[in-house]
Amino acid sequence: MKPIQAGLLGLGTVGGGVFDVLRRNQDEISRRAGRGIQITMVAARDVARAQSLVGPDVQVLGDASAIIANPDIAIVIELIGGCGIAKTLVLEAIAAGKHVVTANKALLAVHGSEIFAAASARGVMVAFEAAVAGGIPIIKALREGLTANRIQWLAGIINGTTNFILSEMRSQGRDFDVVLEEAQRLGYAEADPGFDIQGVDAAHKLTLMSAIAFGIPVQFDKAHVEGITALATADIRYAEQLGYRIKLLGITKRVDKGVELRVHPCLVPAKRLIANVEGAMNAVVVQGDAVGTTLYYGKGAGAEPTASAVIADLVDIARLHTADPEHRVPHLAFQPHTLADAMDALPVLPMSEVVTSYYLRLRVADQAGVLAQVTGLLAEAGVSIDAVLQREADEVGGAGSAQTDLIILTHDTREGTMDAVMARMQALTTVLAPITRLRKEALN
Amino acid sequence: MKPIQAGLLGLGTVGGGVFDVLRRNQDEISRRAGRGIQITMVAARDVARAQSLVGPDVQVLGDASAIIANPDIAIVIELIGGCGIAKTLVLEAIAAGKHVVTANKALLAVHGSEIFAAASARGVMVAFEAAVAGGIPIIKALREGLTANRIQWLAGIINGTTNFILSEMRSQGRDFDVVLEEAQRLGYAEADPGFDIQGVDAAHKLTLMSAIAFGIPVQFDKAHVEGITALATADIRYAEQLGYRIKLLGITKRVDKGVELRVHPCLVPAKRLIANVEGAMNAVVVQGDAVGTTLYYGKGAGAEPTASAVIADLVDIARLHTADPEHRVPHLAFQPHTLADAMDALPVLPMSEVVTSYYLRLRVADQAGVLAQVTGLLAEAGVSIDAVLQREADEVGGAGSAQTDLIILTHDTREGTMDAVMARMQALTTVLAPITRLRKEALN
Repeated sequence: MKPIQAGLLGLGTVGGGVFDVLRRNQDEISRRAGRGIQITMVAARDVARAQSLVGPDVQVLGDASAIIANPDIAIVIELIGGCGIAKTLVLEAIAAGKHVVTANKALLAVHGSEIFAAASARGVMVAFEAAVAGGIPIIKALREGLTANRIQWLAGIINGTTNFILSEMRSQGRDFDVVLEEAQRLGYAEADPGFDIQGVDAAHKLTLMSAIAFGIPVQFDKAHVEGITALATADIRYAEQLGYRIKLLGITKRVDKGVELRVHPCLVPAKRLIANVEGAMNAVVVQGDAVGTTLYYGKGAGAEPTASAVIADLVDIARLHTADPEHRVPHLAFQPHTLADAMDALPVLPMSEVVTSYYLRLRVADQAGVLAQVTGLLAEAGVSIDAVLQREADEVGGAGSAQTDLIILTHDTREGTMDAVMARMQALTTVLAPITRLRKEALN
Repeated sequence: MKPIQAGLLGLGTVGGGVFDVLRRNQDEISRRAGRGIQITMVAARDVARAQSLVGPDVQVLGDASAIIANPDIAIVIELIGGCGIAKTLVLEAIAAGKHVVTANKALLAVHGSEIFAAASARGVMVAFEAAVAGGIPIIKALREGLTANRIQWLAGIINGTTNFILSEMRSQGRDFDVVLEEAQRLGYAEADPGFDIQGVDAAHKLTLMSAIAFGIPVQFDKAHVEGITALATADIRYAEQLGYRIKLLGITKRVDKGVELRVHPCLVPAKRLIANVEGAMNAVVVQGDAVGTTLYYGKGAGAEPTASAVIADLVDIARLHTADPEHRVPHLAFQPHTLADAMDALPVLPMSEVVTSYYLRLRVADQAGVLAQVTGLLAEAGVSIDAVLQREADEVGGAGSAQTDLIILTHDTREGTMDAVMARMQALTTVLAPITRLRKEALN
């Protein structure tokens, strides 16, 4: 059988990785796929540089549209990134009847509904394993491997940069700013790390996983997004003393009223496997009603791990492109016509409706009655307490002004309730600084 | 589209689970699959009991062959187990042009070549996600998710019974026999636990994973199989002191001369995620050249976790059965015509050719020069030492006969070399008991 031909748009780090792995493992891959898969055309801004990288057998153009239009090209691999020209080209490829493989989480999380609808109408596939958790085949696990299950929740470390920073903050006891600089120097964080450290990248990936887990459309605009920039080493230390690790988690949960969709730092029991995922690694825990708890772990970024996912998608397309569209794996795991109803039945809940447990750190005056005041307010609001840790007082403001940290772990509470009681606690004259509030999940 | 109809052979624990999950989640599953999947016929020994379990809508027969022959049945689910009647029925189903889903690791590890050849010739699928690691979609990950990779090695905790026993031996400090009895009482071990505790069940599963990882035929007869019956709590304790956990691992590795295929207790660094997989849980670590290290974790047994895998296979078949056989995922991941050549290029190595590192425990006389004798023999054989742990002497045989345990960790050594040097050490008059030898893997 003739090799299937793909056109690669964008020859950056990941694009180069795809090209290298496909060439290096071409025998192995075609023994699996039953036919060869070749990248015969590449679009790049710097044509001369790209040509020198891919060699003379591959046609390099500055014009991506010419590649899309080429009748020999069956699959378009979009590795440009972002929601600008990448969106235009993906839609152009779909309109031209080409299958698309992309690693572009931002594009799909924000414009997925439009893109998947266009692809379904045109009868082509848009594959995106590489958009979430790099080389870990988590999209395939959710869409196919766990297809028997009613998924109850999933939680993931899906941003390597922030996990690297948190691991270093904990193991070295150093502050966020210092570790971020180190991460940038080592190449674990980009020069502009905003999307990573503010949780936006994780929220893009979580949005995609939430859609395929629950059969709802992508709804990035409804995600609660919180990063790690405000996280203090003191909280990492206190959490550890209480038997927890702090991780930036993307969490999505099916509850009675709808779906929770949230990215934020989170305390996780130290004995959970996911709490022990260190450095730039990724992991996703998925809870299904039949399978129970499963976990998927691996490198979440990098040229070759991401290439591993891109090429898996290419092989899937090589296998499935001759099948009727109705027999293919649906883009968002569930048949497209069922998504709208599911969105009504499972609305994304506002953060105030989320139920979770909490870690609170209060800087308080070291005087009699403070603990009673604080716990009294919690009791009045119906918030039950799981554990309290009171530190030795330390003298910070001279004689008579001893202060201390009061750490409280709560049981499950509605976030709206917690917001209200926190406002009342904050108003106490004995509470001397803004209260730190982190969420906590058992993940069992 | 009309539901696809399946016939279920065997309504034991797993069969009941498949039936329950398929009924409970039928809406969710058909929203994913694009069509319903129904079990319309069941074969069971006790027809009346089975009929009361599945209800009046399902036809229950004592004669499995009648179900296979029924023209409405497109898929046969074999959950009888073993290599007797199950083999006959699977081959009968294939001959009748039916797709087969099975959880039968023993059957496929031993007779896989015959069964897959028959299925390929008849153009039907034999799906076996449930045969390895219960609900963890590891077959799909290896055959599809990691298809870009040259797999270098994989190592798995793929038998829950033995992992439960090892976890209890470590945490409770109790002996194998005591824990085995408890496991039997709790239902974690069968009344006849032989296949589990002797490593045979793990070797069946490893044989299947090795074939799909490296593109070689199943060769169960060439696997090295060692169980946990001889494992002493003392070794678990010493390993812990040295920073290791002992797990029963199935390991298969691609090396220059061929493929290692072995099941045995193994020291693993305590900081690895897989070392922290406790109780009856399963996990598999896979190392690919592009993706790096990935890990898959979940329940390896039980009615509903196994049902999760069986139903995932049913959905895959519902999707792929209209595609040409050449466009389906090959049974053993690689195109069948390539397997024989691969077997020649990658023979399964005899254990004497395996290279690994070792943990040795020697019961020695507590007298000057013993350590020098022992390490001298290792040096002569070219075995280099990673660490030595010498215990305080204890008086066991009365005055003058003090004995002690000498624990040695080696660097990588060929097993044949180790066998020879162990024989020489054993012959020393100062070595007072049979030497304990365990293998050790870094898994990084």
